[in-house]
Amino acid sequence: MKPNLFPWLKDVRLNSATLTGDMSAAVVVTLMLIPQSLAYALLAGMPAHIGLYASVLPLIGYALLGRSPALAVGPVAIASVMTFDALMPFFTPGSPEWVAGGMFLALASGLILIVFGFLRFGFIAALLSHPVMSGFVSGAAILIILGQIKTLTGIQVTGGTAFDQLQQLMTNLHNVNTITLSVGLCTFVLLLLARRFAGMWLKRVGVRGLVLDILTKASPLVMIGIVTLVLVAMDLENATKTVGSVPTGLPILALPPMSSAYSGLVISALLIGVVGFIESVSMARAIGRIRKVPTDPDAELRGLGAANVLSGLSGAFPVTGGLSRSVVNLDAGARTPLAGVFSAILMVIVLLGAGQYLAALPLASLAALIIVAIWSLFDWRTLRECIRFDRADAAGWLVTFFGVLSLGVEHGIMLGIALSVGTVLWRQSRPHIAIIGRLPGSEHFRNVHRHQVETLSNALFLRVDANLFFANWDRVREFIDQQTNHLTQGGEVVLSMASVSDIDSTALEGLQGLARDLKTREIGLSLCEIKGPISDKLKRAHLDGQVNTHLSNHDAFEAIRAKGHALNSPNI
Amino acid sequence: MKPNLFPWLKDVRLNSATLTGDMSAAVVVTLMLIPQSLAYALLAGMPAHIGLYASVLPLIGYALLGRSPALAVGPVAIASVMTFDALMPFFTPGSPEWVAGGMFLALASGLILIVFGFLRFGFIAALLSHPVMSGFVSGAAILIILGQIKTLTGIQVTGGTAFDQLQQLMTNLHNVNTITLSVGLCTFVLLLLARRFAGMWLKRVGVRGLVLDILTKASPLVMIGIVTLVLVAMDLENATKTVGSVPTGLPILALPPMSSAYSGLVISALLIGVVGFIESVSMARAIGRIRKVPTDPDAELRGLGAANVLSGLSGAFPVTGGLSRSVVNLDAGARTPLAGVFSAILMVIVLLGAGQYLAALPLASLAALIIVAIWSLFDWRTLRECIRFDRADAAGWLVTFFGVLSLGVEHGIMLGIALSVGTVLWRQSRPHIAIIGRLPGSEHFRNVHRHQVETLSNALFLRVDANLFFANWDRVREFIDQQTNHLTQGGEVVLSMASVSDIDSTALEGLQGLARDLKTREIGLSLCEIKGPISDKLKRAHLDGQVNTHLSNHDAFEAIRAKGHALNSPNI
Repeated sequence: MKPNLFPWLKDVRLNSATLTGDMSAAVVVTLMLIPQSLAYALLAGMPAHIGLYASVLPLIGYALLGRSPALAVGPVAIASVMTFDALMPFFTPGSPEWVAGGMFLALASGLILIVFGFLRFGFIAALLSHPVMSGFVSGAAILIILGQIKTLTGIQVTGGTAFDQLQQLMTNLHNVNTITLSVGLCTFVLLLLARRFAGMWLKRVGVRGLVLDILTKASPLVMIGIVTLVLVAMDLENATKTVGSVPTGLPILALPPMSSAYSGLVISALLIGVVGFIESVSMARAIGRIRKVPTDPDAELRGLGAANVLSGLSGAFPVTGGLSRSVVNLDAGARTPLAGVFSAILMVIVLLGAGQYLAALPLASLAALIIVAIWSLFDWRTLRECIRFDRADAAGWLVTFFGVLSLGVEHGIMLGIALSVGTVLWRQSRPHIAIIGRLPGSEHFRNVHRHQVETLSNALFLRVDANLFFANWDRVREFIDQQTNHLTQGGEVVLSMASVSDIDSTALEGLQGLARDLKTREIGLSLCEIKGPISDKLKRAHLDGQVNTHLSNHDAFEAIRAKGHALNSPNI
Repeated sequence: MKPNLFPWLKDVRLNSATLTGDMSAAVVVTLMLIPQSLAYALLAGMPAHIGLYASVLPLIGYALLGRSPALAVGPVAIASVMTFDALMPFFTPGSPEWVAGGMFLALASGLILIVFGFLRFGFIAALLSHPVMSGFVSGAAILIILGQIKTLTGIQVTGGTAFDQLQQLMTNLHNVNTITLSVGLCTFVLLLLARRFAGMWLKRVGVRGLVLDILTKASPLVMIGIVTLVLVAMDLENATKTVGSVPTGLPILALPPMSSAYSGLVISALLIGVVGFIESVSMARAIGRIRKVPTDPDAELRGLGAANVLSGLSGAFPVTGGLSRSVVNLDAGARTPLAGVFSAILMVIVLLGAGQYLAALPLASLAALIIVAIWSLFDWRTLRECIRFDRADAAGWLVTFFGVLSLGVEHGIMLGIALSVGTVLWRQSRPHIAIIGRLPGSEHFRNVHRHQVETLSNALFLRVDANLFFANWDRVREFIDQQTNHLTQGGEVVLSMASVSDIDSTALEGLQGLARDLKTREIGLSLCEIKGPISDKLKRAHLDGQVNTHLSNHDAFEAIRAKGHALNSPNI
C-alpha cells in the first residue's frame, strides 16, 4: 500500500478561504496550546518545555498522513497521565531516563499505530465502548485533579491509587505552602472569571469577530501572565516552584538512548496509542459530520502514528487529538490539518523567543489551568443516559470509573477493554432466532410468539437474525435441535437467511452437519432469502446439493404446502 | 446462585443400564489413563506419579459440578505442556518448587473457572475460533513431539522454540543413548502394531464385546509392560531412565507453600483454564449431540473448575477434558460423570498397590506413548477445509500454528486469542446494510443492486442486517449519511429493522441524532419491522415521538407512496 500523503486533499480544495480559516484557527489554538502544552508536560512528569517540543513536529506529522479537517493534535491530559503511569515503575520523574522513556513510548506507539493503519485496523475502535471510554476518562480526570492538588498546595504526595492520594493529602494538610496555594487559587479564580466573563467584557468594549475570538482564547495565558508578573513584582518568584530555565531553540531530532526497561513499556505504548486513537477518532467523526467530510479511521491511525513518531524523535512524549482544542479549532474555522502546520510554525517562534518569559511561570498556576481544563472531561451526562437506556452500559461506565480510581489508569483501561470486548463476544454468542409464520392474507412472515400467523404442520420456519460464524453457530445449532425434536419423518426445516450476510467455515461445516443429521431423520432442510455472496459460499461448500433453496419465505411456504403439509390457521 | 450439585442428574435417570455403562467405560478409560497420566505428568515436568494424583479427585470434582455425560477429565497433553511453559521461567523441572507451582496453577485456574461459571461466562468460548484452536493444537503437538524426541534419544536439549530444539537435536545426534533409543523405538513400533492389529487378533481368537474392548484399550499398557519386563530380565533397567520410586499411598490434601513467583503465574493460569475449557466444551458439545442432551457451557466451566481446584489441593497440576479418552469413554458406554468417579476408585487401587510395578517403566517408552497419542492431535483436515471455505480462517490457522512454533505455547495462544477477538470485532464493525426495493407484484423487498425492484422517488429504504451497538453504529450512520445526500426537502428515510434484535445506548443516542439531523433537512425518518423488545427501548428513549413507525416494509412503502412520492418501476 502506498503511504498516500496529505489524504485530506481528497476532501477539500485549498483556496484563500480555507487558508485564512486555517490561519486564524492556528492563532487561536496556539494561544491555548502554549500554556496547555507546558502543563501537560508537567502532568507527564517531564520538564515543561518538552511540552512545547510535542507541539511542533507532531502537528506536521498529522498533516502528512491524517485526514480530519479540524482535529487538533498535541499533548493531551489522558495520554500524559498514562505516560506518567507507564514510566513510574522504571525511572524517576524529570530525570533524563524519564524523558528518554517518554520518547520511546511515543516512538513505539507511533510505529504501532502506523502499522495498524496500513493493516486497516480502524475497527479496533470497537475495543472500547462509548460508556466504558466515558467512565475511563471521568476516572482519569479525578486522578489528574487529585494529582494537581499537590502542586497547587505544595503538599508532598507519593502517588498511588486515588484513595491513597486523598488520604495522604488529608494527613499532610499542615504542610501546605501558603504562597503556592494562594498563587494557585488566584489563578484558579482568574481562569474561571475569564472563562465566564472575558467574552462578555470584550464584546462590551466593542471587540468583535476574530479579534474577540483570539482575545477570549488568549485569556488563560493572559491570566497566568498577570499572576506571574505580580509574583515577579513582589519578588516572590523564588518562594514557589516555577517552570524554571527553558532552553531557547528547537528540539534536536534523535533516537532515545536504549534501555532494557523499554521491553516493559511496549504494552503501555500499545495502550496509550489505542486509547488516544479511540478518543481522536470519535472526535474526528463528530468533526466529519459537521464539516460533511468522510471519516477514515485507518487514516487517523496513520496520522496519529506519524505524529507520535515525530514526537518521539523530537525528544517529546505521546500526543494525540485533544478534545477541547479540536472544538476550538473547528469553531475558529479550521478547514484542513494545515491549521496544525501553522500552529507548529507559531510554536517555533515561541521556542526561539519566549523561553525566558516562560521561566517564571509558577507551577501552581499551571496546575490550576489543568484542573480547569480537565474538569470538563468528567462525563456525568453519559452515565445518566446509560442508566436511562441500558443498565449494562451503566454498569460498564461505573466499573471502569472505579477501576481507574482503584487500579490506576493502565489497569483501568485494560479492565475497560476486557469489559467492552466481553460485551461484544457476549452479544455475538446469543444470536436472535425467531420461529416465524405467515400473517394471514400477506406474504409477510413474523415471530409466532408475537403475531397471529399461519404455520404448516410438520414444518418449522426459523429466521436467524445474525451472521453465522464460530462465535454463535453452536447456539444456533442447539436452538434448531431443540425446536426440531417434534418434527417427524417427511418434516421440513426452513432457515430464513434474510439477515445472514456473512458465514465462516465453522458455520458452513455446521450447516453440512445439520443437513446430514436431519437427513438421517428423513427431515428436509430448506434455505430461503439467501443473499448473493452467501449462496456463492454455499455452492463452494457443495451445500446447494444437500438443501432445497427458495427465493422467499413465501415461496418456501407455498412449495412445502404443495407437498401436502396442512395449513394451521391462527384461529384454529 | 446456588451451586447446583450433580447438574447431569437433570439429563439422565440413573438405572442399572447407566451404571453398567459407566462402570465398563471406567475400566476401559482407566487402562488408558494409567500410562497417559504418568506420561503427561512427565510432559508437565512433574514426577510421574503426580499424574496419578491428577486422576483421582479431579474426576470426582467434575462429577460434582460438571454436566457432560461422557467428558473424561484428567491430565491432558496441551494443559501439561502449557503448565511446563508457565513454570519454566521460575523453577527447575521436577523440583518441589516446580510441583508447588503446578499446584498453584491448578488452584488458580480452577478458581477462575468456577467464578466464570457462576458469572455465566460460557460465551468466552468465542475467545478462540475453531480454526485458530486447531492451528494452536497442531503447533503444540509438534512442540510436544519434538520435546519427546530428547527423552526418546537421551539427547540433551535445553528447550526454546521448535526451531531451536530441532537444531540442538541435529547438532547433538552423536550423543544419542542407544539403549534408550532402542527401548523407545521398540515401544513405538509395538504401540503402532497394537493400535493397528490388536483388535483384529483378539477377534480372531474369539474375544468379543466388553472384554475385547478392555483388552484393546489395555494394549498400550501391556506393550509398555512387555518392554519393561524384557529390560528387567536383561538387567538393563538402570541403563536407561525409568519412572523410579513411586510413593505408595494416596495424595495428601494440602495448599501449595506460597511463593512470590505466583503473581507471575496468574495470567498463565487464566490461559490454561480458558484453553482447557474451550477444548472441553467443544468435545462436550459433540458428546451432547450424540447423547441427545443439552450442553451447558457454564456448567462445564464450574465442573472443570472444581476438577482443577481438587487437582491443586491433591498436589497435582492443571487438568481438563481429554479428547481421545472422552471418545473412548463415549464408545465404551459412559452415560454420566459417574464413569469418572469409578475411574477415580480404580486409580486409588492403582495408587495403593501398583507403585512398585510402575517404578521400572522406562521414560523412553512413555515418550513413545506420548508421540503416538499426540500425533492424532495434528489437524490437517481443518486447515484443508478452511482453505476451501474461508481464506481468512486458513490464515488464522497458519498464523497461530507458526506462532506457537516460534513463540511457544503461551504467546502462541495469546496471538490466537488476539486473532479470534480481532475477527469478531472486525465482523462486528462492518454490518451489512442494503438499499431495498419492492419486487413488483409482491410484498417482498430485496437489495436494489441484485434485483429488479420498485422504488419511491425522494425516499430511501435501508435494511440493516445487524444489531445496532457501539461497535457498528458509526459505520451505519456514515452509510446512511452517504446514501441520503441526494434526498431533498420532504424526503423520507426508512430503516427496516427486521434483523435488529438488540440495540444499546450508543446506537439509541445515534438514532436520536440521526432523526434530529434529518429533521433539520426536513427529511422524515421511518422505522418498520420493529421487534417487540426494540420498540420498548425506542419508547424509553422517547424516539417513538421523533420517528414514524410502520409494521412492514410494504406498509411503509404504501404510506409514503400515498404522500405523493412517485413510483419508479424497474423497467423505466
